[in-house]
Amino acid sequence: MSRKPMVRPGGRSARVQESVHAAVRALEAEVGREALTVPLIAARAGVTPSTIYRRWGDLHELLSDVAVERLRPDSPPEDRGELAEDLSVWAEQFLEEMAAQPGRAYIRDALLGDDTNAGRCSAYAAEQISVILARAAERGERAPDVETVVDHVVAPMMYRILFRPEGLEAAYARRLVAELLG
Amino acid sequence: MSRKPMVRPGGRSARVQESVHAAVRALEAEVGREALTVPLIAARAGVTPSTIYRRWGDLHELLSDVAVERLRPDSPPEDRGELAEDLSVWAEQFLEEMAAQPGRAYIRDALLGDDTNAGRCSAYAAEQISVILARAAERGERAPDVETVVDHVVAPMMYRILFRPEGLEAAYARRLVAELLG
Repeated sequence: MSRKPMVRPGGRSARVQESVHAAVRALEAEVGREALTVPLIAARAGVTPSTIYRRWGDLHELLSDVAVERLRPDSPPEDRGELAEDLSVWAEQFLEEMAAQPGRAYIRDALLGDDTNAGRCSAYAAEQISVILARAAERGERAPDVETVVDHVVAPMMYRILFRPEGLEAAYARRLVAELLG
Repeated sequence: MSRKPMVRPGGRSARVQESVHAAVRALEAEVGREALTVPLIAARAGVTPSTIYRRWGDLHELLSDVAVERLRPDSPPEDRGELAEDLSVWAEQFLEEMAAQPGRAYIRDALLGDDTNAGRCSAYAAEQISVILARAAERGERAPDVETVVDHVVAPMMYRILFRPEGLEAAYARRLVAELLG
């Protein structure tokens, strides 16, 4: 369904992506998400609407792509010197960000796009977890594999964020990690 | 956000819901989901567009409501006389239905509505699991509680359906149940 390439583009293509993404973010803040249209975004970004349709297919795909970029972690996970602590801190932060209103809106937008977008969100979490597990392995700590952490920590948090967002607290994230490692 | 009442309505209200839902399902099959509009649905259902707007707020909420109804289980879970088997059979069927293209589309639609709709989806799964666990308790089998089954069986399946749908097989559902009970 998506017309965008699988790899991140360079050159003119990268500039188009950057200006279109920036236009979406600016207009969302100014006029609200419901008022966004492809012609409005194109005008702000200085491209033609057909450039956007060619690259993203439709407005949903574009919003989904922008949402996924916003969910991209901007730094590696904290290193506190111990697996249980590293994973707990990461899980708490993940829950806090994703359960907040903007996080939930980005996740829903990401899910509206094609599967590649949802897959990128999941890959971001898996990459952060891999870094934590690799550090644990270097320290000689016993550690589960990434998929096990996804099933036991990421999936329950994301399920509750999407389907039962009430009453989610940091203690829930910590408990999931403790049950997995303990 | 949603204008619909929390309880299922009766009388005229129930007839309106039924005819509007039926119109959505029929038109989706005939003209496709992208072509649906509130006036089109209203005309088919024999109500005014303002009836739909008053009751559901907008098209997204209506589609979300219809999707949730389609996700409602139409029978209690199978009773095979043993917890591990009952839960495995239920999990396999849940995964098969939800991971298929219509199931995934309904889940995405359900998530587009307000939180009540996503909560109803989750409640359907929790109710089915409760039936299975109550039977196990009657037999004198040791059984986890519903929330534990949600975290360890439902959440991983739903996470992968939404974020990483490729390669999901019945064996994955069975493994989640075996790990929880074993």
